Amino acid sequence: MKIADVETPALLIDLDRAEANMKRAQDYADAHDLPLRPHIKTHRLPRFAKAQITLGARGITCQKLGEAEVMADAGIADILVTYNILGTAKLDRLADLHARIRIAVVADNAPVIEGYQARFDDPDHPLGVMVECDTGAGRNGVQTPEEALVLARMIDAAPGLRFLGLMTYPPRDDRVGARLAGMKEAIEADGIAVREISSGGSPGLYSAHETAGITEYRPGTYIYSDRMQVAAGLGTLEDCALSVLATVVSRPTAERAVLDAGSKALAADLSALPGHGHVMGHPDAVLTGLSEEHAVVDISACKDFPAIGEKVRIVPNHACVVTNLFDSARMIRGSGVEETVRIAARGCSQ
Amino acid sequence: MKIADVETPALLIDLDRAEANMKRAQDYADAHDLPLRPHIKTHRLPRFAKAQITLGARGITCQKLGEAEVMADAGIADILVTYNILGTAKLDRLADLHARIRIAVVADNAPVIEGYQARFDDPDHPLGVMVECDTGAGRNGVQTPEEALVLARMIDAAPGLRFLGLMTYPPRDDRVGARLAGMKEAIEADGIAVREISSGGSPGLYSAHETAGITEYRPGTYIYSDRMQVAAGLGTLEDCALSVLATVVSRPTAERAVLDAGSKALAADLSALPGHGHVMGHPDAVLTGLSEEHAVVDISACKDFPAIGEKVRIVPNHACVVTNLFDSARMIRGSGVEETVRIAARGCSQ
Repeated sequence: MKIADVETPALLIDLDRAEANMKRAQDYADAHDLPLRPHIKTHRLPRFAKAQITLGARGITCQKLGEAEVMADAGIADILVTYNILGTAKLDRLADLHARIRIAVVADNAPVIEGYQARFDDPDHPLGVMVECDTGAGRNGVQTPEEALVLARMIDAAPGLRFLGLMTYPPRDDRVGARLAGMKEAIEADGIAVREISSGGSPGLYSAHETAGITEYRPGTYIYSDRMQVAAGLGTLEDCALSVLATVVSRPTAERAVLDAGSKALAADLSALPGHGHVMGHPDAVLTGLSEEHAVVDISACKDFPAIGEKVRIVPNHACVVTNLFDSARMIRGSGVEETVRIAARGCSQ
Repeated sequence: MKIADVETPALLIDLDRAEANMKRAQDYADAHDLPLRPHIKTHRLPRFAKAQITLGARGITCQKLGEAEVMADAGIADILVTYNILGTAKLDRLADLHARIRIAVVADNAPVIEGYQARFDDPDHPLGVMVECDTGAGRNGVQTPEEALVLARMIDAAPGLRFLGLMTYPPRDDRVGARLAGMKEAIEADGIAVREISSGGSPGLYSAHETAGITEYRPGTYIYSDRMQVAAGLGTLEDCALSVLATVVSRPTAERAVLDAGSKALAADLSALPGHGHVMGHPDAVLTGLSEEHAVVDISACKDFPAIGEKVRIVPNHACVVTNLFDSARMIRGSGVEETVRIAARGCSQ
């Protein structure tokens, strides 16, 4: 099947580009002896998780247990879930995963660790736990070395838990390394080993080696890239492997075209970018507005633009949220569709 | 099951509120003799489409064929698809629907009508087509009475098509009525009857009777309402039937809480509202940031806020996009869950 024959809106993944992006990242990681643990929330596909591991990744990262369950079912055997797991039902699911694969989790507060302590009590098969640190991103994470130490002690003292080290989702900020070093120092001064320091984020991928002390890196979006990554300096639009195929459904005025891909296909993440996506081959087109099933495109600066009924491809602002909006993806090479793949970990937010 | 026992993040629909919202709208419509054709893209549930019709709606509105197929399969027999249908595959699906239910579509350009002409040729069972008019919203639609007339003539002249009238998705603007009247006048001056004028939008629902000439109204969000609707004047937060249940997973600082419902649960539609949702019972909490699986909440203005592990309910900014993010909804009354329902028309963008 040709791309031009695919019904719209549709999610397209360019295999050549995705494979090149994976290889480039692994080559970089190998050159700097920095293990990768890719975050699967960009692709949500077991096949790419396996490809990342085959290339050399030490394991994968999931944000939620539901994603980890999909990946474990597909045969992935080493998963870090970078989320505080709370409540009996989720702890039971975590225990099920712990019984069959190598899984680790994080904690940034005492109640979460108390839950792990209560559920995991086997010193011969302890659950690995990292302390999540806020290194400036302002989301989860302990704020100070003192807080990190309190949690590390709790984990270290629990027979069924094993303190692995520190985890952060960092901002792009030169002070991240110093903040992590301060937390590590406080913990090691107490006699507790900080075996791992895990950092992540695709914008900082190719400078990850510059942060001293990092022992693994968790890039996610790098496999597909998107407009946000390009704006942040990760490659060019020609590296973007994910696009949304859309049909021009209306040309109401000389300046306006309307596409059949709205926020249900492209997501409304605007970030600080001009417009909601890049129309491939028409760089002067601006996606000025999205409603759920329509994209309004300002084509006033375009020399030409496809006619009603013709199709265009759009590189979205944020690839990860887009893969959560489609039940399946079309795997393409060149102008042909190789396969249609169900997005197995779509929607797994629990 | 109690709401408090539901795993998070989860979509909750308050049946008492949804039923009251449906009844209030139908009572208003009955009082003004204005037929309703509710848009199902808010709930995406056959049960509510049926409830809307049982209450008195003349039929339903869908945005895409995939939604119409789900609703037709569930027994809905009168559907307006407010979208330009293009391409052989979609026209075949439209023909299948036309063979089994009463279905109508729209067009705002000649190529779309040419597609309908080529596919539908039975004068004894013509396809109903409305001309979509841009009355100021700046999305789809003909711009002038002259353009509307050209398309009405094309439809009227096609043996297998039946010109039904005009459709618009209007802005909140006093000039909508005059614009529609101008288009109607141009078409009727040519001897073509404009049987229907269909308008829509929940913010304008309770003033719909003030626009002269409207023969049906297509409200969508009114069934659940949301922060955007409340901001636009449609009822209060106490009318909002849809909420997202989330767990407090972290309290990293005295001013910051983090919930396990991010843009995958609440969607990133910010509109012009302060924050990404209203935390029920905590009106001073501000959802300052969403990542995919985290909401960061500024609780500095709150007297108290739930502890780690406790649950909160969030009224989102935009209900329609939220129902597209969940595979199922929990139907609640008071503090109890009555039923879990699959969201049958989720993701049907083709």
